Amino acid sequence: MMIDAQMPTRIVFGAGRLDELAALDLPGSHALICTSKSERAERKALLDRVIGLLDGADVAATAYEGVTPNPTNEQVGEACALAKESGCDFVIGLGGGSSIDAAKAIAMMMRQDGDLWDYAYTGSGGKKDILQAAPVVAISTTAGTGTETDPYSVITNVETGEKLDFAADVLYPAVSIIDPELMVSLPEDQTIYQGIDALFHAAECAITNRAENRLVDVFAQESISHVLTWLPVVVKEPGNIEGRTMLAYAADICSGYTQSLINTTSHHIIAQTIGGMFPSVPHGASLIMIAEEYYKRIAAFVPDELDLVGAYLGVDPCNHLPGQSFAEGLARFFDRLGVRGLPLSDYGIAWEDLPAIADAAVNRTGIADVDLYTLTEEDVLGILQRSYR
Amino acid sequence: MMIDAQMPTRIVFGAGRLDELAALDLPGSHALICTSKSERAERKALLDRVIGLLDGADVAATAYEGVTPNPTNEQVGEACALAKESGCDFVIGLGGGSSIDAAKAIAMMMRQDGDLWDYAYTGSGGKKDILQAAPVVAISTTAGTGTETDPYSVITNVETGEKLDFAADVLYPAVSIIDPELMVSLPEDQTIYQGIDALFHAAECAITNRAENRLVDVFAQESISHVLTWLPVVVKEPGNIEGRTMLAYAADICSGYTQSLINTTSHHIIAQTIGGMFPSVPHGASLIMIAEEYYKRIAAFVPDELDLVGAYLGVDPCNHLPGQSFAEGLARFFDRLGVRGLPLSDYGIAWEDLPAIADAAVNRTGIADVDLYTLTEEDVLGILQRSYR
Repeated sequence: MMIDAQMPTRIVFGAGRLDELAALDLPGSHALICTSKSERAERKALLDRVIGLLDGADVAATAYEGVTPNPTNEQVGEACALAKESGCDFVIGLGGGSSIDAAKAIAMMMRQDGDLWDYAYTGSGGKKDILQAAPVVAISTTAGTGTETDPYSVITNVETGEKLDFAADVLYPAVSIIDPELMVSLPEDQTIYQGIDALFHAAECAITNRAENRLVDVFAQESISHVLTWLPVVVKEPGNIEGRTMLAYAADICSGYTQSLINTTSHHIIAQTIGGMFPSVPHGASLIMIAEEYYKRIAAFVPDELDLVGAYLGVDPCNHLPGQSFAEGLARFFDRLGVRGLPLSDYGIAWEDLPAIADAAVNRTGIADVDLYTLTEEDVLGILQRSYR
Repeated sequence: MMIDAQMPTRIVFGAGRLDELAALDLPGSHALICTSKSERAERKALLDRVIGLLDGADVAATAYEGVTPNPTNEQVGEACALAKESGCDFVIGLGGGSSIDAAKAIAMMMRQDGDLWDYAYTGSGGKKDILQAAPVVAISTTAGTGTETDPYSVITNVETGEKLDFAADVLYPAVSIIDPELMVSLPEDQTIYQGIDALFHAAECAITNRAENRLVDVFAQESISHVLTWLPVVVKEPGNIEGRTMLAYAADICSGYTQSLINTTSHHIIAQTIGGMFPSVPHGASLIMIAEEYYKRIAAFVPDELDLVGAYLGVDPCNHLPGQSFAEGLARFFDRLGVRGLPLSDYGIAWEDLPAIADAAVNRTGIADVDLYTLTEEDVLGILQRSYR
């Protein structure tokens, strides 16, 4: 067993704790608040509340409300220019993974020369080291990406259609406020997609756990078992604070930690490729669409790892062929949540588009080094075709 | 549930990984190596090996070999003067908890004015904020204190006889190298005492878990269950690397994390008081001597918490009166390790000394705010007297 670990983000987690924002030792005197323009009244009120809290701490605020799902390099450039013009010295990511990931990329470009894409570490990215970034404070309104506690940012390039990762120790948020009260108004579909995203972060890290780092298994089991228990509860009762709390713990802390310890599998890369080429597909939905076929395909490569995460999902591996219990558990859980068999065609993806997705995932982003096995372009195309509805 | 968490230390954990020292991005160019003068050949060879590795990375080294068990303010002063004279810019704590705790206190006083005791946060300490410290690299040779991953240092004042805590975020080591190969030569008694210390760090944090911070329970269960499984293994087979690895994981990572999340109970304060007044008592031994009577005394106050940690120790609470399963589990485990009923009198502690210990623990160090219950001086004296052999 080998462990390489570091979890430097200061976490302030619990219902009602956003109120502590003003009392925190904030890492600057003028915040760029990076968020999305939401039509939901709760989100508009939240921006005002955050500006008010900052004002109480004598911290100035400039708001950038242009973030969309699958945030883009253009948005990062726009917001970074605004931050520089306004004299901002730190960034608050207010919202879900999109707002926080955009905040990280903006913070990076506030202290870095050149073009954002010089620093992406896969695909057409320049793979330059990211050595500096302005401090980021994350205020999370979703239980999903784990960006609250991990060193990653995922940004889509509008020119190339790529959705690529940025990774660096300086991208850990300085502080993450995770207040489940901010999550009760999250719509059902987003709640499900984000919960499932968290489940896959945990499961994929456990599957890729080369070093047999026990901390990965510990956090993965914590995350998956809590998502399994609590996601159906909050789908039925969106206002259930205990459920929102446990889901946020699973997603934003446990799954974030697994990602700070090890990478996810090529399942995530294929899903991100779909999101880069078809930006209307929610990230969690793209994961669900291909999951069962993906895990059936790799069952023979990593049967023990899949049975381990299958057990975390409550499936007894003894009742199934080796390596099949995870796919079986997913099928049951998706059925229970009403998201099994989500059609790619619902988002405008045609059968004829599938080879381009497989090509981009395998040859542009690259999946050669991420897994304990190596999937070919043909394998990935097969997964996409068998998943197609 | 509330979570306040931060685990910033970079952990490099695994058999043989000390060799990576030279390749790490070390936080300075001249290290003060803080260690004890050991008679064991392995420890002498280890100091030479570390100096050689640093030399390979063009990092200068000055050694201070004056640390003893229960390290003192005098040693810290001596070593700090040596560090300043020699132009050291960071400190390496090489050894067990004593060497690493001393390294933290030295690092603190390299960047802080005044006297060390101004900064102790209990007893006669000045309780001043610790805002700066030189970076510390921990190289651990024991599986015990958790100082590798926590923000504490415990130092004994030779004038007052107090053994007090220093606590600050700047006292987290920058890097901790935890290499179980360095632990195979640890003598049996130290192996046991340190394993038991780790077990109590985990259990006490779970008992004091006011905020119902789930991470405390997760790390506590990991630590206790691994100590329960592996401590008897390494006592029988000191060279068992898997056992040494799992114990180091439990003690130096999991129990260190629990301590970074929440404080231990007054059990630890009473044991530290014994160590401060009778420095020849190993810390783990002082914990063992009073443990059964301590946990019987508090059974009525926190029965659920004690049954939880009792379950982590493998005892079914249903077979015992409420709150008794932890004391029962300890009795069994101590019996198995051959350390049940360690006599205080073996270390020169007389029956007549017990009131002074109770007085110092309750009235000088203070235990009023640490527990979920409040023990009086009479309670503590009763625990000591019932424990006395």
